[in-house]
Formats: sequence, structure tokens, C-alpha cells
Amino acid sequence: MSDDYSVSKQNKVRQLREKAVYDRKTVHAILDSAMIAHVAFVEDGHPVVVPMLYGRDGETLFLHGARKARVIRLLKGTGTACLNVTHVDGLVYARSAFNSSMNYRSATVFGSARLVEGSDEKLRALRIISECTMPGRWDELRAPLANEVKMTGVIALEIESASAKVATGMPEDEDDDYAIPIWAGVLPLESKFTTLQSDDRLIDGVEPSDVVRSMEKKIL
Amino acid sequence: MSDDYSVSKQNKVRQLREKAVYDRKTVHAILDSAMIAHVAFVEDGHPVVVPMLYGRDGETLFLHGARKARVIRLLKGTGTACLNVTHVDGLVYARSAFNSSMNYRSATVFGSARLVEGSDEKLRALRIISECTMPGRWDELRAPLANEVKMTGVIALEIESASAKVATGMPEDEDDDYAIPIWAGVLPLESKFTTLQSDDRLIDGVEPSDVVRSMEKKIL
Repeated sequence: MSDDYSVSKQNKVRQLREKAVYDRKTVHAILDSAMIAHVAFVEDGHPVVVPMLYGRDGETLFLHGARKARVIRLLKGTGTACLNVTHVDGLVYARSAFNSSMNYRSATVFGSARLVEGSDEKLRALRIISECTMPGRWDELRAPLANEVKMTGVIALEIESASAKVATGMPEDEDDDYAIPIWAGVLPLESKFTTLQSDDRLIDGVEPSDVVRSMEKKIL
Repeated sequence: MSDDYSVSKQNKVRQLREKAVYDRKTVHAILDSAMIAHVAFVEDGHPVVVPMLYGRDGETLFLHGARKARVIRLLKGTGTACLNVTHVDGLVYARSAFNSSMNYRSATVFGSARLVEGSDEKLRALRIISECTMPGRWDELRAPLANEVKMTGVIALEIESASAKVATGMPEDEDDDYAIPIWAGVLPLESKFTTLQSDDRLIDGVEPSDVVRSMEKKIL
């Protein structure tokens, strides 16, 4: 498998091309460090976008929702689905409004969507989603009930093409503007887990496991 | 104007209806506290989703991009556009995989999109976007050049319908599962600005203004 996604009309980055990245490693890293993806589909000719939980296994993304959810039905019927994951990493204060911007990591994926059927494949997909969101938790929990699996709709999206766009660092101003006596720089934005809060209905003496505790203070 | 968006087929929340909110105040607050929105459009029959900077003025959202950007061209030609803003507020560790979830604030907006034309209306829209992203900064900066305004494409999206979905608090487990001796609770996720980093090319002695400084440590 090539290190890069091939560039086609579908995934070609048109604006700020110097920030475009097509290598799988970068795209995967962005996908793996976020909690939700925004998934677009078409309903009666109109565009709709929905935030969804997801997990990645190689070049397959798994998305889930209620079995009867509109998004599951529509993704199943859609040809190519499109999904974006974006982290905003900070505000870029330039010396003009025109050059002011943000630092970010963004990945866009195009792929065909299919409904995951069969209890075994569904369970595997649900485990992958769980591991990507709450690593290590799946094995601590009771096994899913047959009815719970049945009530869950799972979509597999095979990545056919993808691109990333990454903006980092300081503002790039017009040559003349560097003479303006105004502050310029970056204000980083950090997404960070804080500290665990226990449910009131915990059984006495039950503590969070090490895998759960290890998520505290984690930065996305 | 009614306090709530009226509920139609378009904006009706179908899943987890108990978390649905249709009041303008909640929708506006979610829109106002995020940095980017995910905007969906249809290209050659296929769904596409793009993250965009935006600003709100009453029931109008302004989006901008390069004048020639695909998204500007397509939004201009689209009938109804759809936009979603979601904050993930934490992981909800339940006593089963099925009830594990996230806390979040999500707003979805549907509206008609039109290209903003004319330098004055464009300038006004750009100012609104700037104020929503970097409050107070616009007035510190030199005036935009005619060519900069010309090169920028601005879309106005009039909110026709909208909904919010808000999930907070502790897991809701199956009655039987409360007897399982496993930790359950919430791990909050916080998005927070950290500290200003100055550009290397600052003029000696230039400091950030109070409006810029006031963004430090701000939580979204």
C-alpha cells in the first residue's frame, strides 16, 4: 500500500495548497486523536451534516448510531460518504484581518459506506469504536446483550481517498505590514481531559481502573 | 419573534429526543462559543463537508473563504445549506458499552445561503466574523485593502430552522447494571486558550492589547 492517498478531483485540496498533506500517517493521526467526526449525507437532494462517534481500523472507519437513525439509513443508501475531523489548535493574530487565521489539523475522508450486518462483525466494530474513544474500557465491561447489539446500527466506511490540511506556527503577513506597531502572534487552544468525576450511585469502594485513570489530563 | 425555532421535518431531532432543545437562546449560545462550524453541501450529487470560520449576527450566519473557493461557489448555488457546531464536553463511562456515551452541546442549522456582494456589506460581514473569533481585534488592525475584500468570498446563511442537542451529567445505566462493581462516571473534556506566544518579528516594545490578553485562559 502506498504511503500516500492518490490525489484525484475528489480529495484535491484547492485552497491553501501549501498546507495540503496526503500521507496516510498524517490523516490517520488526525482521525485517531479526535472524539467525533462530522459526516455529510444527502437527504432528498439537500445536504445534511451530523456529528458522530467513530473508530478506525486500518483504512476502515466505523460509525454507529441507533439502528433506526436517519443517518444510518441514509449512509447505507448513499454512494460516497464524506467525513471531516478538525482540531482547532489556536488563533493566529496577524497584522491585518486578511491574514488573521487559525492553526488547525483537519482531515477529510471520502469512502463508500455499507451497513455492518451480522452480530460478530457488529461486535468487532463496536469494540473498535469503544477502543478509539475509551481505550481499555471494553474489556472491563460486561458483554453486550444480543438486544443491545441488535438496536445499534453500524456503518463501515472504507477510505477511498483522503486529504489533510495542517496549519501551524506564526502569522504570515504582507511585507509592508511588519512595520505596523501592533502585537502579532498565536494564542494556542488546548483540548484536555480534566479529572474523573464519580457517579453518585457507585458501589462503595469501587475505584477507576488504571486504563480509565490514564485518560486524566490527556491532551487531544 | 418566537423564543423557539418551529419544529419541522427538517430540524426535528429523531434520536434521543429528550435531549432536543429548540430555543433560540440555547442554539445561539452554542453557535457563539465555537470557533468553527462544519458546513455540508452537495457536489455532483455527492455530500461534502467542510470546516469553516463563521460569525453570527442575530439570525444570520456569515461564512467566508477565498472568493474562488469551491465551498463559496457551491454554497452560493445550493438551495438549503446545513451547518453543525458541536462541543464535546466529556466522556461518559457507563456500566455497559451500550450506555457509554459523551456529554456534548450540538447545534444544527438549516438555512438558505446567498453570496454577499458589495464592498460595504462584505466589510460588515467580515467584521462580524472577526468579532466572533477574535473579539476587539478588528478595531486594532489597519483597514482591509480593497483587493483583500475583493479576494474574499462571503456567504450569508439565514437561519430558517435549527435545533440543539445537549447531553450533560452522569451515565444512565440499566437497572440491573448498578449492581456491577465497576467504576462509572464522567471525564470532562475542556477546550481552553493557553498563553499568548509572540511573533519573532514583533517591533521592540510592542505588547498585546487588553482585548487580546483577555482571551488567555478562556474556556470555550
